[in-house]
Amino acid sequence: MKKLKIPEQTIERLPLYLRRSEELHSKGEESVTSHQFVKDLPGINSDNLRKDLSYFGNYGKKGSGYYIPQLQEELRSILKLHIETPVVLVGAGNLGTALLTHQDFNRWGFRITAAFDSDPSVIGDQIGGIIVQPAEDLKSTVRNQEVAVAMIAVPADSAQIVADSLVSAGVQGILNFAPTLLEVPSDITVKQVDITSKLKELNFYLN
Amino acid sequence: MKKLKIPEQTIERLPLYLRRSEELHSKGEESVTSHQFVKDLPGINSDNLRKDLSYFGNYGKKGSGYYIPQLQEELRSILKLHIETPVVLVGAGNLGTALLTHQDFNRWGFRITAAFDSDPSVIGDQIGGIIVQPAEDLKSTVRNQEVAVAMIAVPADSAQIVADSLVSAGVQGILNFAPTLLEVPSDITVKQVDITSKLKELNFYLN
Repeated sequence: MKKLKIPEQTIERLPLYLRRSEELHSKGEESVTSHQFVKDLPGINSDNLRKDLSYFGNYGKKGSGYYIPQLQEELRSILKLHIETPVVLVGAGNLGTALLTHQDFNRWGFRITAAFDSDPSVIGDQIGGIIVQPAEDLKSTVRNQEVAVAMIAVPADSAQIVADSLVSAGVQGILNFAPTLLEVPSDITVKQVDITSKLKELNFYLN
Repeated sequence: MKKLKIPEQTIERLPLYLRRSEELHSKGEESVTSHQFVKDLPGINSDNLRKDLSYFGNYGKKGSGYYIPQLQEELRSILKLHIETPVVLVGAGNLGTALLTHQDFNRWGFRITAAFDSDPSVIGDQIGGIIVQPAEDLKSTVRNQEVAVAMIAVPADSAQIVADSLVSAGVQGILNFAPTLLEVPSDITVKQVDITSKLKELNFYLN
C-alpha cells in the first residue's frame, strides 16, 4: 500500500513530466538536467521534480541528469498507460462532442466505448464514431462492458444523479467536467476538470 | 510584490475554495470548521486551507470556524472576479464551440468578446452569440479591444504560432487547451488545461 503515501500533488505532476519527456524526446534530447527539464513547466522547480520521482525509483544521475527515453517509459508505466482503458462518456452536448472527437485520448490508451445522453434529439447520433445511447442504458452498458472509468459532461444540476448511477453500476473513477463537487463513496476516485477554475487562477496574476 | 511569494499551489486551490464556499452558502451554511470545509475537496486537508488563506488575511475564528458569506466575498475579491474580464478565443472547432456555449464563464465576470479560426467553413458562423472572425484579424482585434486574456483551443501543432501572435498583440495571460507546452516571455502567464492529464492522474489510482 506504498502508493497511498504518495502526495496527490506528486501524482498531479506526473502527466506533466510525461508530456515534457515526450517533447524533449521529439526534439532529440537524450539526457537533460533537472533544471533543463522543469523549464517551461509552470510552477514546478527542480526540487519538486527530484522529490516526485524519488517515490518511484532512482532515475536521475549526478552530472548527466535524466535519460529521457527511460524516464518516458517509466512514467507511462507508473500511470499504467500501457494498458488500454475503456471509458464511457455521459453528456453528448457541446463539451461531450469535443471529448468524443478529441484526438489525444487514444494515444494514451483511453478508448471511449459508449456515450449517453437524455436529450432525444441527440440520442442515436454518431459522434466521433460512437452512437449516443439513451441515459436509461447507462447502468446496463457499464455493467456489461465492465467499464471502470467515466467522464461526466452534463450540466451541474444533473451531475450528482449521473455520478450515483455510475457508482452503482460499478465505476471506480470519474472525471467530472460539470462545475460542481460530487459526493461519492470513499473508494471511488473523482478528478475535477474545471475550466473556469484555471481562468480564475490566471486572472489572479493579471493586472 | 507580496503576491510573488504566494505558492502557485495556493493560487490553484483558491477557485476550489470559492466553489466550496458557494456550495455551502447555497445549502444555507453560515459558519463551518476547516474540517467541514475541506470535506469533498480532493487532496486538500484543513492545514492546506488554513495555510493558504493565511496569505490573504485572518479569516477563521477559533471555535466557530469560517464565516462563509465573508469568505466567499474575500475569495472573489482576491481573484479579482468583481471586475469584468474580456477574453478572446482562438479555435472554434468542437472544443471552441463548447467554450463559446459554456454557461459558467459569465457568472464569474469572464466575457468572450471575439473568436477566431483559420477554417473558412467556420468563419462567419455565429456560436454562442459570437461571430467567428478570420485568424488574420486576431492581432488587430486584440489590440483594438485591449484584451488581456486569451484561450487557445487549436490543434497542438498550431498552438505556439497562435501564442506568439497573441503575445505580440499585447495579451498578458493565456489559457491553453492545446495539448502542448507553450514557450512565452517570462512576463506572460500561461495556464494549461490538459484534459488527458486528469484522466492519466485518475488512471494511476485505479486497479
